[in-house]
Amino acid sequence: MSGRLAVVGIGPGDPALLNEQAKSALADADALYGYRAYLDRVPARQGQSRHASDNRQETARAAAALAHAARGANVAVVTGGDPGVFAMAAAVCEEIEAGPPALRALDVTVIPGITAMLALAARVGAPLGHDFCALSLSDNLKSWEVIERRLDAAASGGFVIALYNPASRARPLQLRRAFERLARHLPGSTLVIFGRAVSRPDERISITTLAEAGAEDADMSTVIIVGSAETRLIDRPGRAPLVYSPRKQTVPAGSGGSSRRGGA
Amino acid sequence: MSGRLAVVGIGPGDPALLNEQAKSALADADALYGYRAYLDRVPARQGQSRHASDNRQETARAAAALAHAARGANVAVVTGGDPGVFAMAAAVCEEIEAGPPALRALDVTVIPGITAMLALAARVGAPLGHDFCALSLSDNLKSWEVIERRLDAAASGGFVIALYNPASRARPLQLRRAFERLARHLPGSTLVIFGRAVSRPDERISITTLAEAGAEDADMSTVIIVGSAETRLIDRPGRAPLVYSPRKQTVPAGSGGSSRRGGA
Repeated sequence: MSGRLAVVGIGPGDPALLNEQAKSALADADALYGYRAYLDRVPARQGQSRHASDNRQETARAAAALAHAARGANVAVVTGGDPGVFAMAAAVCEEIEAGPPALRALDVTVIPGITAMLALAARVGAPLGHDFCALSLSDNLKSWEVIERRLDAAASGGFVIALYNPASRARPLQLRRAFERLARHLPGSTLVIFGRAVSRPDERISITTLAEAGAEDADMSTVIIVGSAETRLIDRPGRAPLVYSPRKQTVPAGSGGSSRRGGA
Repeated sequence: MSGRLAVVGIGPGDPALLNEQAKSALADADALYGYRAYLDRVPARQGQSRHASDNRQETARAAAALAHAARGANVAVVTGGDPGVFAMAAAVCEEIEAGPPALRALDVTVIPGITAMLALAARVGAPLGHDFCALSLSDNLKSWEVIERRLDAAASGGFVIALYNPASRARPLQLRRAFERLARHLPGSTLVIFGRAVSRPDERISITTLAEAGAEDADMSTVIIVGSAETRLIDRPGRAPLVYSPRKQTVPAGSGGSSRRGGA
């Protein structure tokens, strides 16, 4: 009984962004667990069982996959992007800590992948070119007050901000409120990049400003990068513009603090 | 004259973490530009020229690679990790904006890779499991005051913090000062993970606490993840412990703000 569990990141969607470790782990597994849309991206293999579940079933999925591995199987949990960024690796760890002691004996590995913000950044230039934050706008697992405090801290600190889980049918208003919050700290001209289904056939990328950004442009497949006040756009005749955040930081040390209106 | 330039992320070091897009771009290039240690990781190919340069030569390297592409060649700039995270993509954008108009006509692509913090996080569990920041401790391109302000913002906001460029021979004291700064906001028991040469044969990973963390354990090949106050460690008999940051945030909204002593 030496079960194994691999939490595998399959990246943003394009199979050409998958690495060899991930491919091997997917090919070697006796059983795959995952959100239905992610499992659909993994080629079928004879003799490999598939256990699809709906979004938001992370805890139950992690528990079922761990129990399966504890029976001696080689199990892979399939997750989009990188398993460690708002995905399944934390849910698996939570279940190992909360579950029966046998789960601590399992061989658990996490195989990294290209997370959505890196894929989007690469498509437009280098918007994450200086210090940045990644923040989930879902308030299923934390209060909206915590989210607002973090938006304040990130924007007033001069970080570029990647927003994950910006909207869903259950939470249509979060993103609008987040943009309003960020506008307390950042000029309306701050660049905002929407990336939906990045690297997939239905990819949709748009570049706008904080003043013009509309919350209706986001869904569950969208990641958003909000620049810092220093993020720049390069127009290119006949080509898509580039967006980047310069490595050199010229903002005076006190400027973020003095505009910090909403914080503690 | 239709030159092309690809900025290619080769990940943390293990070739099995490279994706197909990166491999193709490296194989197809007429010329490779990069920091010597990264170029050494790319298999040699007949007829492909190599242009190695030292660390800290990012601006000159970007300008030379762009000029080469503008002469009609297919050029790849090789960078460790992900090109968009404290690497070459921003330097290339800076040179496109500052350089001759012809550079804006080039076909420029960025191919994402596994950045160091994701590779390290995967090796220990899920320490980036909730909101997090990535911050470079190098003060070559920004003032130490900006760095301190961002450390304050990130720690008081409850973000997990990944520290890039924590130390070099020219900057031995930065990391100690950063830990002292973070200790204003975070308990001494906060988990800290050092990852050196992650995924490479000489990989060295250690887990300690903010109170015990020593700055002498870091060099230019090290990335450090400082947990939030909620980051947890799971002991496992006969196995390395897991470290993770739970998805559920239980910290009351005001707790970070009230301990914010160092900010603006």
